[in-house]
Amino acid sequence: MEPSIEIFSPATVANVGPGFDILGFALDSPGDILRLGRINGEHHIIENLSGVSIPLDPGKNVATVALEAFMGAIGSGQKFRITFLQKIPAGSGIGSSAASSAGAVYAANLLLGSPTTESGLIPFAMKGEEVASGSAHADNVAPALIGGFVLVRSYEPLDVFRIPSPAEMYCTVVHPDISISTGDSRRILKTSVPLKTAVTQCGNVAGLVTGLITGNFRLIRDSMHDVIAEPIRSFLIPEYDNVKKAAMDSGALGCNISGSGPSIFALSEDAETAARTGKSMKDVFSAARIGSNVFVSQVNMQGMKILSETL
Amino acid sequence: MEPSIEIFSPATVANVGPGFDILGFALDSPGDILRLGRINGEHHIIENLSGVSIPLDPGKNVATVALEAFMGAIGSGQKFRITFLQKIPAGSGIGSSAASSAGAVYAANLLLGSPTTESGLIPFAMKGEEVASGSAHADNVAPALIGGFVLVRSYEPLDVFRIPSPAEMYCTVVHPDISISTGDSRRILKTSVPLKTAVTQCGNVAGLVTGLITGNFRLIRDSMHDVIAEPIRSFLIPEYDNVKKAAMDSGALGCNISGSGPSIFALSEDAETAARTGKSMKDVFSAARIGSNVFVSQVNMQGMKILSETL
Repeated sequence: MEPSIEIFSPATVANVGPGFDILGFALDSPGDILRLGRINGEHHIIENLSGVSIPLDPGKNVATVALEAFMGAIGSGQKFRITFLQKIPAGSGIGSSAASSAGAVYAANLLLGSPTTESGLIPFAMKGEEVASGSAHADNVAPALIGGFVLVRSYEPLDVFRIPSPAEMYCTVVHPDISISTGDSRRILKTSVPLKTAVTQCGNVAGLVTGLITGNFRLIRDSMHDVIAEPIRSFLIPEYDNVKKAAMDSGALGCNISGSGPSIFALSEDAETAARTGKSMKDVFSAARIGSNVFVSQVNMQGMKILSETL
Repeated sequence: MEPSIEIFSPATVANVGPGFDILGFALDSPGDILRLGRINGEHHIIENLSGVSIPLDPGKNVATVALEAFMGAIGSGQKFRITFLQKIPAGSGIGSSAASSAGAVYAANLLLGSPTTESGLIPFAMKGEEVASGSAHADNVAPALIGGFVLVRSYEPLDVFRIPSPAEMYCTVVHPDISISTGDSRRILKTSVPLKTAVTQCGNVAGLVTGLITGNFRLIRDSMHDVIAEPIRSFLIPEYDNVKKAAMDSGALGCNISGSGPSIFALSEDAETAARTGKSMKDVFSAARIGSNVFVSQVNMQGMKILSETL
């Protein structure tokens, strides 16, 4: 039997409040489950057992694009059989493409005896993001690979680091049955912002980071405001203000658009608050006759998980 | 003899790299030395023994303006004799007005049996800043009052907090013999910034704060970039780029304009580097026939210091 490995690659929330474009975190669920096997041959083989539609062309599938970038960098011609056993649906705003591209290179790295580190894999996973959305961003793939809250400070050179955070935090994600294209979501943003707005965003992101590192939930709550993207993007999500209000009234620490939406996430100090928050948020959508899926998860401090290995 | 207290009120550096308008820190030297005494009478008395010119009209002196705001808030008609024994010259960009206004309310609070905390004094000291510069900013008065690195996250409501930082850090301030008005320095800034620039600034301030809290000097160094004010304001300071290069070549962690200039500050890990940095920076100004004063100081983790009391 071919050497193979089965892994769980987590969903991730990017654009965490004032950390627009720079801060993401990983979830314990949902996520992708991928099996990678080393094969002899000239082409990768993609198998989809997930029940969710994905591109089967290796030039368009984010996993194979990321794998090719990785193999190219280490000068290897190794090909893989990639089996998607579980897949986060695309377009949900919780890093579905990142889960596949980061998961694929993580599994391949292990199968090849770990020629690089989790952080070293970020640039290859970013190549998958480039195919998926047109921009090679790191704010989903980095937390998927290394877990916890991850800040992308700079792209040239790439500087990505973990923000220490409380041992237990909980996230509620509500995914309404509407669709927004990442492209639209990017295009409606203004290309410049008032100086005062930029300073406010800086103050809030500094407050959020300080709150996370020092475990100051008051400060996290007071700093969880995005004054750049949310005021514009929230118009794309019906009921957004009401859903956010329901989350805050339920005791959440903060509530914002996840990635470029349409999912909305809320952070909470404990599991009970996160569950209550999810119910209130869903109720607002339901009252407006919009269906939604709710995920309640601990913030994932580990990143990827190995489910089984046959080496 | 009237009850009196003599205090040292520190110089402060605001606009710390990417913390434009939100981050400041206090110095061990230079600073103001003020003596405050409780007096019976209807007017404050200002005495100036500092050798530095200051307004003697209580309506224009930042110390008496701050004192009046404080007394008004606690419903007291108490008046004071304020003696300036040592004064940071105005217009240097190291918080000279903040040292006087914060120092005055700090001393008055002690003389009155501490009706409020150091943090509680910030809004009164800000009234002095308003008289001095037209804007009631807190990024000098707050570090002068509470010491260390201080972030001003929000003004409405006022949210000001200490950023934990390494126990020892050193600062070099070079004050060239040129003058810049705070008004000019504010007016030349653009009223809007590109979105990408705002995101870069956010990433750097998050990196700087993370570096300070976790004692990661590599991250502090890589994050000490201001992409909003420095690229514009540095044109007001002759030799700025060369002075900054000299500081970085000497091993400084970062180098930026202090406040609205013309002083330039550099942060270093140790006293030796800070001294060497000061010499290199001064040499660049000297070669361009610009005189300068150099101050090398530990970052002040305490804030105000009581020098003597007669209660």
